[in-house]
Amino acid sequence: MYLKNCWYVAAWDHEILVDTLLQRTIIGESLVMYRTAAGQVVAMDNRCCHRHAPLHLGRREGDCVRCMYHGLKYDATGKCVDIPGQEMIPAKLMQRVYPTVQRKRWVWIWMGKPELADESLIQDMFSLTSPEWRWIPSYLHYNCNYLNICDNLLDFSHLSYVHEKTFGGSPNIAEAKPEVKRIERGVAVSRDVKNTVPAPYHQRLGQFSGKVNRWFSYDFVVPGILRLDGGVVSVDNAEGDHTGALRFHSCQAVTPETDQSTHYFYMQAHNFRLDDATITESIHQSQRAAFLEDKTILEAQQQMINQSPDVAMLPIAADLGLSQYRRILQALIEAEAVPPSPSMALVE
Amino acid sequence: MYLKNCWYVAAWDHEILVDTLLQRTIIGESLVMYRTAAGQVVAMDNRCCHRHAPLHLGRREGDCVRCMYHGLKYDATGKCVDIPGQEMIPAKLMQRVYPTVQRKRWVWIWMGKPELADESLIQDMFSLTSPEWRWIPSYLHYNCNYLNICDNLLDFSHLSYVHEKTFGGSPNIAEAKPEVKRIERGVAVSRDVKNTVPAPYHQRLGQFSGKVNRWFSYDFVVPGILRLDGGVVSVDNAEGDHTGALRFHSCQAVTPETDQSTHYFYMQAHNFRLDDATITESIHQSQRAAFLEDKTILEAQQQMINQSPDVAMLPIAADLGLSQYRRILQALIEAEAVPPSPSMALVE
Amino acid sequence: MYLKNCWYVAAWDHEILVDTLLQRTIIGESLVMYRTAAGQVVAMDNRCCHRHAPLHLGRREGDCVRCMYHGLKYDATGKCVDIPGQEMIPAKLMQRVYPTVQRKRWVWIWMGKPELADESLIQDMFSLTSPEWRWIPSYLHYNCNYLNICDNLLDFSHLSYVHEKTFGGSPNIAEAKPEVKRIERGVAVSRDVKNTVPAPYHQRLGQFSGKVNRWFSYDFVVPGILRLDGGVVSVDNAEGDHTGALRFHSCQAVTPETDQSTHYFYMQAHNFRLDDATITESIHQSQRAAFLEDKTILEAQQQMINQSPDVAMLPIAADLGLSQYRRILQALIEAEAVPPSPSMALVE
Repeated sequence: MYLKNCWYVAAWDHEILVDTLLQRTIIGESLVMYRTAAGQVVAMDNRCCHRHAPLHLGRREGDCVRCMYHGLKYDATGKCVDIPGQEMIPAKLMQRVYPTVQRKRWVWIWMGKPELADESLIQDMFSLTSPEWRWIPSYLHYNCNYLNICDNLLDFSHLSYVHEKTFGGSPNIAEAKPEVKRIERGVAVSRDVKNTVPAPYHQRLGQFSGKVNRWFSYDFVVPGILRLDGGVVSVDNAEGDHTGALRFHSCQAVTPETDQSTHYFYMQAHNFRLDDATITESIHQSQRAAFLEDKTILEAQQQMINQSPDVAMLPIAADLGLSQYRRILQALIEAEAVPPSPSMALVE
Repeated sequence: MYLKNCWYVAAWDHEILVDTLLQRTIIGESLVMYRTAAGQVVAMDNRCCHRHAPLHLGRREGDCVRCMYHGLKYDATGKCVDIPGQEMIPAKLMQRVYPTVQRKRWVWIWMGKPELADESLIQDMFSLTSPEWRWIPSYLHYNCNYLNICDNLLDFSHLSYVHEKTFGGSPNIAEAKPEVKRIERGVAVSRDVKNTVPAPYHQRLGQFSGKVNRWFSYDFVVPGILRLDGGVVSVDNAEGDHTGALRFHSCQAVTPETDQSTHYFYMQAHNFRLDDATITESIHQSQRAAFLEDKTILEAQQQMINQSPDVAMLPIAADLGLSQYRRILQALIEAEAVPPSPSMALVE
Repeated sequence: MYLKNCWYVAAWDHEILVDTLLQRTIIGESLVMYRTAAGQVVAMDNRCCHRHAPLHLGRREGDCVRCMYHGLKYDATGKCVDIPGQEMIPAKLMQRVYPTVQRKRWVWIWMGKPELADESLIQDMFSLTSPEWRWIPSYLHYNCNYLNICDNLLDFSHLSYVHEKTFGGSPNIAEAKPEVKRIERGVAVSRDVKNTVPAPYHQRLGQFSGKVNRWFSYDFVVPGILRLDGGVVSVDNAEGDHTGALRFHSCQAVTPETDQSTHYFYMQAHNFRLDDATITESIHQSQRAAFLEDKTILEAQQQMINQSPDVAMLPIAADLGLSQYRRILQALIEAEAVPPSPSMALVE
């Protein structure tokens, strides 16, 4: 079961073009996505209502899309506007079109009831357009359920193990106690790692001769949106002195594709040495290498879960964040499933 | 569910040889097919009744086939005639053998009750042996349900879209109204397309300087047999004057392999320039290119159907032929499922 | 359903090393296997009890294994001995460890109740360590249910057909009547093939100018352990004179991996020309070639069974051994499923 009345990240803005038809499956629904001449993103049910041929194999005609099986043509609202050889077009011949919003490089989609689509629920991903940050837009496809990725992002103790040779570097991250706070539709997590060694990744970017302090501070809200402020600074620096520090801001979005696969949109921005593109590229490559480590363990975990889906997992203290997030998400999903009460039904 | 009491095309005659054992699955049943020394086609249950090893991995011994697991040997009627190391052969050790008929290059098989096998139900595919027509025998394997292919063949409006660059050339085909008539065990469809452009395919074969008239006239009967007369002639010709016309006759057979895959036997014959083998080859290649366009859209359609098998399709006027055919087929399938009435049972 | 309270062969001894983590699935259970510094084999549930990540992607730390997702560490008894960032370790955080015994090159595992593990049930595979026999350790993976392999091993009539060009050579093996005797937890089978031709395989190894006598004598006990004495001798030799004979001893173990796949551990030993390593290699290659013939037919058989899992098999006289073995195994499996009687429950 998925949460429907929420904004999922559906694509990077540059993935949806005027002259192409992008097929993308989100929470099990196959969509065709394109951009009108005026720049509006259209996300339409990919299954032609006539004989279920996929529209992404169709043809753009102005702001419309024509199914290239029997030629039915739909406008950007999903209305059928042409049936070759037939004059009368029944009103029920139409495609569902989902609300979308483009905001700072990401295209968001509302998979639930259109009348409930509330743009104020979209997080401000400020670093996606700030000139003070540089980064490279990135995407990974995971063959695992999205909740396993959420779990992963909600417990950074895994950095010490999964990312020992990239982001980690020592058990200190796992040993540091995170602070987890409930926030609106999600949790805020912060973890200070004092007097530790710089990660292999920091060694390449910075000039740390000795021990460092590291910090991670992020919020994670439904349906899987992470904004992270993190960095590393020498222990020799006075409290609050960020000279020589490396600071990062990361935007990440976990979007279920199917029960067993997930879209992962992300970037890792830096605000130092902005004039050096090789730094941006190096951070991008390091992040990708580390996320491929996640992909390996999470897909292997999924295989184990699939072999014995009914075996319970046993909690440890580090699960605080992920357990809390799962409860929040589960409550929202269950609330959606509740049928409207009789009095509400009368109002409708 | 499949219709069983009917003749399916099982193979081209040249596929079934004296010295080979052909494995072929039809309506979900795995068969081993071979030809006796006298030329009779044998279609036998491929699953050895003993331990279910496949007989197509066995050995021909005269007109018999020996299972190469434990050596049981069956004659062309399916009777077990040798069990190594055992003298008494129980009568129930036998393989089901299906009625087959070879008729004009096609081998037909009856998957239902043998006592109901009625050869008069086999269509006369005259062009398969007529010296007035030339063609190349062809086969395609589709990863989709056979009914989707039947649908496709029963609505040629798709030529304007699926085959825009091969058989189509303009929306005129889709715009022309077909005439659909109920015939014995199927439908007859004719579609005249007046004053249109020649298809890209016709341009290569003919010498049309301007507009043309095109015609398609075919019948399609259970379980998926199509015979088509079609062609193209200049609009400058007087009514009935076929000078310079291109005329084709096509025989096609759709045979379910499994629920998700289908055999497609076909040929497209021409009766002009019979002395030029490159014409025959060119038509063959054009047909294959166009049918691969069908394969692409039909397999993509199947994927969409599989994702949401319970979503209803919405009809349009062009569905007349396919809807009628599906009803005819469905009625025949349901009639098979009805148990004989008590009085009928007494007669048997 | 699998028999659980029995010893399966889990691995060759050389597969389990001090510095590696071997993943192996047995009767559907994914295990991680390794060897302690003292040489003890550990077979542990591969699914970390915390979030189900697989331990075989973990790290050896002394005789412990650490999960490289969140860092939980388990000792060789399966006890969790470290949770990074958490002082109290709940007792229920532990991994199941299965009893294992290394005996003459094979590692045996007990998949049932540990308190019932009885080492006296392990067969003595004497040739695995006897200096009088030479052989090469071998393994094949079959994509079929283990019972089909047991069937195969319990009826050597298949040598005449499956192995016509390798082990067989004539129908005489299938024609010879085997003697099948019930023994403790299995059956003993012997088959004398008199006055036959040497197999193609014997022709390469021996110097037989004419007809030969062949013998096969083996026992096969649950859960799939075969010990075979076999050979070939000239018909010219007097009774009991083994001059010029070729004699073999074979140890084979069939271990279910999943419902549709099986581990097959085996060797074929010879006690002649022990100083010639090319003989050992030649026998190994011949055996492997023949077992690949089995693999082909057994996997094809499995595909046929999967297509029609409910169709009954029809018995012949040659099924005596395999039918008897299946009954023995089935009775043991059913006995395990019986809940303890009330009085027994009180005792526990």
